[in-house]
Amino acid sequence: MNETQPVTRGELRYEGKAKRVYATPDPEQYIVEYKDDATAFNGVKKAQIAGKGAINNAITVAIYPRLEAAGIPTHFIRQLSEREQLVRAVSIVPVEVIVRNVAAGSFSKRLGIEEGTPLPRPVVEYCYKSDALSDPLINTDTALSLGWATEPQLIKIRELALKVRGFLTPFFEQRGVRLIDFKLEFGTLASGEVVLADEISPDTCRFWDAATNEKLDKDRFRRDLGGVEDAYSEMLRRITA
Amino acid sequence: MNETQPVTRGELRYEGKAKRVYATPDPEQYIVEYKDDATAFNGVKKAQIAGKGAINNAITVAIYPRLEAAGIPTHFIRQLSEREQLVRAVSIVPVEVIVRNVAAGSFSKRLGIEEGTPLPRPVVEYCYKSDALSDPLINTDTALSLGWATEPQLIKIRELALKVRGFLTPFFEQRGVRLIDFKLEFGTLASGEVVLADEISPDTCRFWDAATNEKLDKDRFRRDLGGVEDAYSEMLRRITA
Ligand SMILES: Nc1ncnc2c1ncn2[C@@H]1O[C@H](COP(=O)(O)OP(=O)(O)O)[C@@H](O)[C@H]1O
Ligand SMILES: Nc1ncnc2c1ncn2[C@@H]1O[C@H](COP(=O)(O)OP(=O)(O)O)[C@@H](O)[C@H]1O
Ligand SMILES: [Mg+2]
Ligand SMILES: [Mg+2]
Repeated sequence: MNETQPVTRGELRYEGKAKRVYATPDPEQYIVEYKDDATAFNGVKKAQIAGKGAINNAITVAIYPRLEAAGIPTHFIRQLSEREQLVRAVSIVPVEVIVRNVAAGSFSKRLGIEEGTPLPRPVVEYCYKSDALSDPLINTDTALSLGWATEPQLIKIRELALKVRGFLTPFFEQRGVRLIDFKLEFGTLASGEVVLADEISPDTCRFWDAATNEKLDKDRFRRDLGGVEDAYSEMLRRITA
Repeated sequence: MNETQPVTRGELRYEGKAKRVYATPDPEQYIVEYKDDATAFNGVKKAQIAGKGAINNAITVAIYPRLEAAGIPTHFIRQLSEREQLVRAVSIVPVEVIVRNVAAGSFSKRLGIEEGTPLPRPVVEYCYKSDALSDPLINTDTALSLGWATEPQLIKIRELALKVRGFLTPFFEQRGVRLIDFKLEFGTLASGEVVLADEISPDTCRFWDAATNEKLDKDRFRRDLGGVEDAYSEMLRRITA
């Protein structure tokens, strides 16, 4: 299959809150389709954000090859259409990884630390990926004990998450954006290799304008700040400028 | 100061939910007095449990020298009276350590795992010691980033916590008690040495009767199961039998 051939969409394998995953004729590849659906507070708040699917697809498409070039293996193969990309099929590790440069969101609330306080050292947090439980905070002992990941996987995941941070933080800084925190998902290939999966977008990162601290991410939706579409478009513009 | 001399109580240094800490003529020593006060849900539920102070003092007095003998440095010096013990003054590390053998309590609730499910590997959790924030769950990255402990301290704390588990689990098993989980606090001496501080009692552990799974700990109070005093007395009886 070459770079330009269309790929036939097979059956819907999974529909999440923001994307649909389809089979392809190749069992090792999936099509991911980005939706305009937005949810917050684990599905309690729902809306459509016009154009979000296309923007998040374009942002992820712009970022993943750069991560690959920086030595981070990812699921990304290529863009298929405005809303679709071809990815390597993985088995998602049910441990979401949050990397924090600056206190914000649930971290600020839980620990009583003002949003915007820089963290002297990056903090890597782990959550159990479970909509039913609202992605509860866990630690690596819990993931190991409950069989959600193996020790070598967790070591690799942490290493890759910090490498992603090492690449993304200056990447966004050069574009006038403070990378406050971000969420990653990892998966395993049939070979067992751990690769970065899912997306990196204003849905999964906190982006603050470096000059004004204006929020350029999903917090505009979560907190009813308005200008959601504009913020997402602005992020795409800065990334692809 | 020899083994039998009384120690003059100096000023009250700290009054917590279950104990009072007093200065002594020696700045490196404190008197800890155990109260009958019981609190749950971070102080929301309050009561007196008759005799609890004396029982928890006696239980801690029975356990700490055994931990010392097992190679775990502790703050314990000696018992002074029914409710008092002499301890080494430490600076408490504001990171509480929870060690879990079996799912229960907040862990079961947060992760949707039935109480009583054995954990294939022990789980060590860390909480930020803060009444105002209700002791939120954290991880070691957070403790390091926010300066609550140093990396060598956290390594030592984890090592000692697992050593405490290694001693206590069979110790209680031999007494017909399943050690479900327990909470520890550590402190640093003026020398910088990390030692086990605080108490080990039915207030800070979950104890289930090995034959009947009857709760012999503070959950009887938290969950209004009745027979609180009897459970605490029974634990003291089994430990000192
Ligand atoms: N390469 C991949 N292979 C298989 N599943 C993937 C891959 N990349 C992402 N996924 C999964 O696709 C699902 C759809 O994404 P999304 O709508 O964001 O779901 P969610 O509601 O769980 O956040 C998620 O469960 C995500 O983990
Ligand atoms: N050796 C020690 N030196 C100094 N403080 C100690 C020592 N051992 C325990 N403490 C502290 O004494 C306080 C009183 O205990 P407690 O009533 O259990 O308090 P809390 O309400 O914080 O649980 C706690 O803050 C505990 O950390
Ligand atoms: Mg998602
Ligand atoms: Mg206490």
